[in-house]
Amino acid sequence: MPSPARPRSPSIHARDLERNAANFAPLSPLSFLERAAGTYPDRVAVIHGRKRFSWKETYARCRRLASALARRGVGPGDTVAVMAANTPEIYEASFGVPMLGAVLNTLNVRLDGATIAFCLDHGEATVLLADTEFANVVKVALAQVKRKILVVDIADSEAEAGGERLGETDYESFLAEGDPNFAWTMPADEWDAISLNYTSGTTGNPKGVVYHHRGAYLNALSNIVGWNMGHHPVYLWTLPMFHCNGWCYPWSLAAIGGTSVCLRRVSAANIYAAIAEHKVTHFCGAPIVLNSVVNATAAEKKPLPHTVQVMTAAAAPPAATLADMQQAGFNVTHVYGLTETYGPAVICSWHPEWDALPIEQQAKLKSRQGVRYHALEGLAVMDPDTMAPVPADGMTMGEVMFRGNIVMKGYLKNPKATAAAFKGGWFHSGDLGVRHPDGYIQLKDRSKDIIISGGENISSIEVEGTIAAHPAVLFAAVVAKPDAKWGETPCAFVELKPGKSAGVDEIIAFCRERMAKFKCPRHVVFGPLPKTSTGKIQKYKLREMAKEA
Amino acid sequence: MPSPARPRSPSIHARDLERNAANFAPLSPLSFLERAAGTYPDRVAVIHGRKRFSWKETYARCRRLASALARRGVGPGDTVAVMAANTPEIYEASFGVPMLGAVLNTLNVRLDGATIAFCLDHGEATVLLADTEFANVVKVALAQVKRKILVVDIADSEAEAGGERLGETDYESFLAEGDPNFAWTMPADEWDAISLNYTSGTTGNPKGVVYHHRGAYLNALSNIVGWNMGHHPVYLWTLPMFHCNGWCYPWSLAAIGGTSVCLRRVSAANIYAAIAEHKVTHFCGAPIVLNSVVNATAAEKKPLPHTVQVMTAAAAPPAATLADMQQAGFNVTHVYGLTETYGPAVICSWHPEWDALPIEQQAKLKSRQGVRYHALEGLAVMDPDTMAPVPADGMTMGEVMFRGNIVMKGYLKNPKATAAAFKGGWFHSGDLGVRHPDGYIQLKDRSKDIIISGGENISSIEVEGTIAAHPAVLFAAVVAKPDAKWGETPCAFVELKPGKSAGVDEIIAFCRERMAKFKCPRHVVFGPLPKTSTGKIQKYKLREMAKEA
Repeated sequence: MPSPARPRSPSIHARDLERNAANFAPLSPLSFLERAAGTYPDRVAVIHGRKRFSWKETYARCRRLASALARRGVGPGDTVAVMAANTPEIYEASFGVPMLGAVLNTLNVRLDGATIAFCLDHGEATVLLADTEFANVVKVALAQVKRKILVVDIADSEAEAGGERLGETDYESFLAEGDPNFAWTMPADEWDAISLNYTSGTTGNPKGVVYHHRGAYLNALSNIVGWNMGHHPVYLWTLPMFHCNGWCYPWSLAAIGGTSVCLRRVSAANIYAAIAEHKVTHFCGAPIVLNSVVNATAAEKKPLPHTVQVMTAAAAPPAATLADMQQAGFNVTHVYGLTETYGPAVICSWHPEWDALPIEQQAKLKSRQGVRYHALEGLAVMDPDTMAPVPADGMTMGEVMFRGNIVMKGYLKNPKATAAAFKGGWFHSGDLGVRHPDGYIQLKDRSKDIIISGGENISSIEVEGTIAAHPAVLFAAVVAKPDAKWGETPCAFVELKPGKSAGVDEIIAFCRERMAKFKCPRHVVFGPLPKTSTGKIQKYKLREMAKEA
Repeated sequence: MPSPARPRSPSIHARDLERNAANFAPLSPLSFLERAAGTYPDRVAVIHGRKRFSWKETYARCRRLASALARRGVGPGDTVAVMAANTPEIYEASFGVPMLGAVLNTLNVRLDGATIAFCLDHGEATVLLADTEFANVVKVALAQVKRKILVVDIADSEAEAGGERLGETDYESFLAEGDPNFAWTMPADEWDAISLNYTSGTTGNPKGVVYHHRGAYLNALSNIVGWNMGHHPVYLWTLPMFHCNGWCYPWSLAAIGGTSVCLRRVSAANIYAAIAEHKVTHFCGAPIVLNSVVNATAAEKKPLPHTVQVMTAAAAPPAATLADMQQAGFNVTHVYGLTETYGPAVICSWHPEWDALPIEQQAKLKSRQGVRYHALEGLAVMDPDTMAPVPADGMTMGEVMFRGNIVMKGYLKNPKATAAAFKGGWFHSGDLGVRHPDGYIQLKDRSKDIIISGGENISSIEVEGTIAAHPAVLFAAVVAKPDAKWGETPCAFVELKPGKSAGVDEIIAFCRERMAKFKCPRHVVFGPLPKTSTGKIQKYKLREMAKEA
């Protein structure tokens, strides 16, 4: 990674060649929506149940939203919160809110009322668009917030059952207040905030990650180029749009005239049904989504109309899951990122030659996180104390670090955390990984998830991947269990596939055949695993359970 | 097109969230080369005759070039000129020169010595990399320049015959002076110049168009997304790399790990041979290149291994040529731009539904220039006096204007011309066009090429397109002939296909069957047409000839 250039003396190429309205425009993904509406006015932009919105209609609805917000006094720099399932409203908010320079704060719908209240207060939301499905939690939150917030109900006509209406008005009435020809504006500066995303911190208050228009624009393009998306994909919304702004895909889809197929409930049956009905070409999801797809029952499955492209991240999917997906007709692309990096920022860029390898070897290559996204300028695995890169030996662990335009502006109202995250001029992910001789990185663990047994580092991901290859295992999570002799030992939590069984000794023996003995779990606990709303296994809970195991 | 936002008061999302080394990097296409070398080190980047360079090798050669230039005292802001055919050296210069912050000035190899001397002096070149094929012209130029210039010979081992060596050293020896691990730098500012391209002005001195790293990065991505290129294309260099930096494709190809197939001589035989040998997937060219492809002899033609994607611009290709290309197995994408817009900036974005239309109708839709490129924020057809957009009626002519990040910084050392070009906050193209009801624009003429007959505007492009549909016609150009009664009348110059014949009356009758009488040429002159180096027909010469016709 090259360093920024030394300052130089003004050259002839800098003289009388300043920026002006003709040759400079702030980068913003809003320009993609205007282009889609102008170029493909009648193509379907959004499908939800029986509803269809063309790009012309979606553009008009976004402008109405911006206009209605403006008429209610919302202005540049204000925060507009959204508590919604994957429905057209949150797609529209991805454009309508930033169209007036306001900042979109999509909330994790699985959080509790107190945490939602914290986010609304901390983010200084002035408006909340809330799906009535979440009325119970929203009610608790609103009772606790210290601010006056205009609540607009999303009362989805396509939902099976709505909850209590808490708002002053509902979304469709609110849109009707707005002007479909609203004269929206590009941001004054591409560094202006476009959205605010709270991390689902497992301890303490969530931190507010701020994205800017520049990063949103660049990552939207990177998604397209990195994933080789092509024009007019049919994209199924299995990934929550509240999660890192749906990894910037709402904006990517506008750039290439793609169709969003909304999905309120993610299930194997719903995924297969949507693929069959709408000829879905692409979807994204955590490995838990992949797992449910490959383990769907015969009744849930439907034949695929073509190879379906799937992007997965969040945690490293076990090689076994990747191989199963491939065999079922899904082509999985593996990416990696954090809320702090606009979602995906690292991709396991595929070499065409790898197609000729046996599927198990392909899965192994694919389980690596890979190389930097086009819009990420730096990706390193470094010793966080010395900031020296680890050797590319596939063995030496270091902390994964990022730099570039798709790294967040910082944490809202938290300069201390921001400074710590950016120490040494790199964003510190807290993830531990290695760099392979071919330059691809592979995660080994979260800093705090590494198990140190008898002075040896054990990657919990490696142990989990081994256990997950057992045919009876649905999910496996491995954490450190305090041990008087070894300091820590690996303790495995295992969720079995429906109808399958396996015993403690069988799992341990399975591991011993495949790994060094010191890495094998000493304890194995069976049962459903606690998970966060985005499908991450809650290791802090397992760590508590391990103490008692 | 939305206007920039009103200034706003600082919001919480702007506080303590400044740029730093972790979250901001200047945009530059140089980052694509580093990524390609790291991700696809052993894939073939450049093919030339018997030569093959992998991405690792190309990256090392670019770093050697940057290093060798630096050791000879070239620094940031200096100009390095290149006079080269489409060979690996000019591809390498596209990266190696900007790697040290210097500015690449690729020269049109078909210019005369005096004009080359003007460019070298005006651009203040300190180094000239020159292919010995052009030694005669370069010698004349060097005898006239007022500067000391280090000349490096490109003595191409793959060329049939080299010319005189004029340089102090040759390119390969020069590379050997450089360090393949040179610590190159990203630009200090993405607004820094990356290249200087002289317009092939038909009258007066050429103007020096300055590009910056930001625009080069964005148009490189726009090419990929707009043309739906996919990963690892095999790209044939029919378009001169000296022309608008090869429309930014050297940089696009680095972003997607594409292979450049070099081509010193553009001919139908060479194009078909390269497609067959290298399984070429993409090439670009002026309509003259398309014409030679469709009119290739049976001996020149070879079967295509797959549909070949062709991008064309420069002049509007007649619908007949587009239809012929389609039938021959080439899929043509029509773009439009100027040297001032980094090459293509407008694209006839294709609707999948149009595939079902008859081929003639497809060709008609395709002959329109279309909509803005992703990286262009504004495209308008306006009355240049009032700056009011014309109605989208497909009839009312106005001047085509551009705004956005892929509009040049301006003209080098020419603030007056820069100010005139950017008057009213838009780049004035000098091209006249209409906007159709579906939003697509279509060029009708250059401002100076419009024919005004009896007070009626006649689009020379429309008349040319009509004549070109005649089966005996290879090229047609129409200009104004002064006329005592009508002011001007259309005069057609026609180049016939080899072995075909047609008479004056036949051409005029052919037009009368298809167009209003006042638009039909009164005079028709047969013979080869004078063309510029980039295949544009030299209408100023025809205008002189028309006076005598």
